[in-house]
Amino acid sequence: MIYMDNAASTRMLPEVVEAMIPYMRERMGNPSSIHREGRLARKSVERARAEVASLINAHPSEVLFTSGGTESNNTALYGIARRNPGCRIITTAIEHDSVLEPCGRLEGDRHDIVYLAPDGAGMISPADVESALAEPAGLVSVMTANNEVGTIQPISEMARACRERGVPLHTDAVQAAGKIPLDVHGTGVDLASISSHKIGGPKGVGALYIRRGTVLDPVILGGGQEGGLRSGTENVAGIVGFGEACRLARIRMDENGMRTGALRDEMVSRITGSIPGVTLNGHRTSRLPGNAHLTFLGASGEDLIIKLDEHGIAASTGSACSMHTQKESHVLRAMGMPPDAIRGSLRLTLGPDNTPEDVGRVASALPGIVEELRAVSPLRQKYRF
Amino acid sequence: MIYMDNAASTRMLPEVVEAMIPYMRERMGNPSSIHREGRLARKSVERARAEVASLINAHPSEVLFTSGGTESNNTALYGIARRNPGCRIITTAIEHDSVLEPCGRLEGDRHDIVYLAPDGAGMISPADVESALAEPAGLVSVMTANNEVGTIQPISEMARACRERGVPLHTDAVQAAGKIPLDVHGTGVDLASISSHKIGGPKGVGALYIRRGTVLDPVILGGGQEGGLRSGTENVAGIVGFGEACRLARIRMDENGMRTGALRDEMVSRITGSIPGVTLNGHRTSRLPGNAHLTFLGASGEDLIIKLDEHGIAASTGSACSMHTQKESHVLRAMGMPPDAIRGSLRLTLGPDNTPEDVGRVASALPGIVEELRAVSPLRQKYRF
Repeated sequence: MIYMDNAASTRMLPEVVEAMIPYMRERMGNPSSIHREGRLARKSVERARAEVASLINAHPSEVLFTSGGTESNNTALYGIARRNPGCRIITTAIEHDSVLEPCGRLEGDRHDIVYLAPDGAGMISPADVESALAEPAGLVSVMTANNEVGTIQPISEMARACRERGVPLHTDAVQAAGKIPLDVHGTGVDLASISSHKIGGPKGVGALYIRRGTVLDPVILGGGQEGGLRSGTENVAGIVGFGEACRLARIRMDENGMRTGALRDEMVSRITGSIPGVTLNGHRTSRLPGNAHLTFLGASGEDLIIKLDEHGIAASTGSACSMHTQKESHVLRAMGMPPDAIRGSLRLTLGPDNTPEDVGRVASALPGIVEELRAVSPLRQKYRF
Repeated sequence: MIYMDNAASTRMLPEVVEAMIPYMRERMGNPSSIHREGRLARKSVERARAEVASLINAHPSEVLFTSGGTESNNTALYGIARRNPGCRIITTAIEHDSVLEPCGRLEGDRHDIVYLAPDGAGMISPADVESALAEPAGLVSVMTANNEVGTIQPISEMARACRERGVPLHTDAVQAAGKIPLDVHGTGVDLASISSHKIGGPKGVGALYIRRGTVLDPVILGGGQEGGLRSGTENVAGIVGFGEACRLARIRMDENGMRTGALRDEMVSRITGSIPGVTLNGHRTSRLPGNAHLTFLGASGEDLIIKLDEHGIAASTGSACSMHTQKESHVLRAMGMPPDAIRGSLRLTLGPDNTPEDVGRVASALPGIVEELRAVSPLRQKYRF
C-alpha cells in the first residue's frame, strides 16, 4: 500500500512504539500518585514535556498536554473567551473545523468573530490582520499552515502586529509542527496547538503551548492535573510517544523536509506534465514540503480516491475530519475556486516513509484513472478534455 | 513491587497490549478517511465500541468515546446544562472532583446545585434523592461506587425515582465498571462515565454512555467525529485496547471479583487483628471487591504511604487526583469522620494481579510501620496506643 494521506494521520515511528512499550507492559503508575510508580510516571511525562517544548522553542512549563489538536484548539479559544466574555475574535475563513466550530459557538455567545479571507493561494495577508486590529480584539487565531492546500502563513508578521496592540495570538500549528521550524518565543505567538499523530506519534495526544503570562480558563475540570488547566489522568504512554516523536521530528526535520519536498515536486511535475487540465492549488513556495493539492477538472475527488484506493494508493480530498459531512471544502471556496475545480480536487500528502517508487506508482496510475473518469464526466463538453 | 493502588491506575493487561500493537506498528489510518486504511481504522473503533457497550449492557450507538473518565463526567454535566441553562442539578458531596468542579462552575453560571450528604458508611439514601426531586431538576448525578471508600450506591432505586419525574440520571461509574455488573438498560440510568485505565486498558481513553433519546450539547467541537458529540481524530489504538479491556473485564468479572474480594477480606482481617486502633471505613457489604480503606489513628496517611513505599508497597491516601492540592478528603469529611481519623487514612486497592503473598507482605509490614509512626505521634497521649 502506498500511503499518501499523511496530513490525515501518520504511521507511528518504530522508535516511538519502542519508547511507549515499557509504559504499556510494565509501568502502571498514575503520575499523581506519590509512591515510586507514580513518581516514575511523573518523570516520564516531564521528560516528554521538555521534548515537545524543544521542538517549538518553548519552555517546558509552557506546554500543556491535551487529547489532541482539536482539544488544543478548543482550549485556546474557549480558554481566552471565558476570561474575556463577549470579546471580539479575529480568525480566518480557512481554519480547521476545530477552530471554526468553537468560533461559531462563541458567536452565539455574543462574541463578534471576524473571518479574514485568503488570496487565491490560500494566503492570509498580515495587512488584513492589522486592519482588523484597528478595533479592539481579545484574540487572533490564524493557522500556521493550512491542512488542505498546505499554504504556510506569515505568522511572524501577524505576531508583531498582535504584540503591538497587546492582543494574544493563537496559531493552529497542527500541520506545521515537526515539518517546518517553529519558534514560538522568537515569533512571539502566545498560544500554539500541536498534535502527535501528524508526526509519527500516537493518536489521542496533543499539546497547547501557552506563553508564560497568558491566562486561560480550563475547559475540562476535575483533579487539577496540568496545573489545573486540563484535568484527567495523564495519558502517560501516549505522552511518552509524543515526546519521542517530537524529538525525532526535531533532529530529522531538515532531512525529512528536503526529501519529501523533492519527492512532492517530482510527483507534481510528473502529474501535471502527463495529464492535461491539472492545476496545483495553494502557494508555490510558502508551502508544507509534503503537500500536493491538485485539481483534475472533470474528475470528482471522491471518485479519484476510490480509484486510487483500488490501485492500493491512499489519498484524500481534503480534511479527513470533514468526510462525515461530505460538504464542499470551505478552504477552497474561500480561496475563490469555482465549484467544478473544488469538486475535482485531490490531496496527496507525503511523509518520511514515502519513496521514489511510491511517487512513480502514483504518477503512473493517475493518467489512466483521470481519463476513465473524464470519459463519463458531465463536464466533458464544457471543458473539452 | 507490590502494587495496591489499582483504584488510581492499573497495569495494562497483556492481551490489551497485544491487541494495540498492530495499531501502533502497522495500521495508521484516520477513521474518517475513506480509503482502505481509514475503513480498517473505522471498523476497529466500531468493534471496540461494541465491546464497551456489552460490558454495561448498552447499545453500541449509545457509547461515546472520550479521552477518559474526567472528560466523560464533564461532557455529561456541561452537555445537559447547556441544553437546559440554569437548571437545578442534584448531586452528592462525595463525587469525584471531575463532577464537583464542573458543578462548581455551573453554580457560577446560575445553576442551583444540591449536594446530598452520605451516611457514615459513605452511602447516599435514595429517599434523599427522591426528596430533592420534589422540586424541578434538570439532572441527577450520583456515582456508582466511591473512589476512596469503595461504597456502592443504590443506583437502581435512584434511577426509578428519576424516571418517574423524567429527570435524567448520570452516574460516574469509573470505579465500578468492570468490577461489578452494570446494566444501564436494566437500571435505567441515562448517562454513565467509564474509564479504560482503571480496568487494565490504556490511559487517555474512556467512554460516556448516553441513552438513546438523551440529548446533550458537545463540549469539544470540530470535525464532527463521534456523531458530532466529541470532535477530534479517534485514538484508534487506545480505543482498541479499551475494547479489549472491557471484553476481558466482562468475561472475568465474577472470578476477579471473588478473588480480589477474598484477598481484600483476608488482608483487612489480618491488619485489624494485628494492629490496635484500626477501623475499616466505608460500607461493610455494599463495597467494591478490591477496596480496603482503613484508618490508623495517630499515623498520617502520607507517612504510611512513604513508609510502605520504602517496603516496595504502592498505596495511597485516597484520590490520586487530589494529591496536587494535598487537601483533606472531602469524601471522608462528608461521611462525618473526625479530622484525626481522616488524617490517619490509607487506601489499599487490589486488582487481579495481586496474590496471597502480596497480602501477606502488606499485613506483615504494617504493624511495624504503624508502631514506628505512632511512637512519635502527637496523638499518642490522646488515644493512648
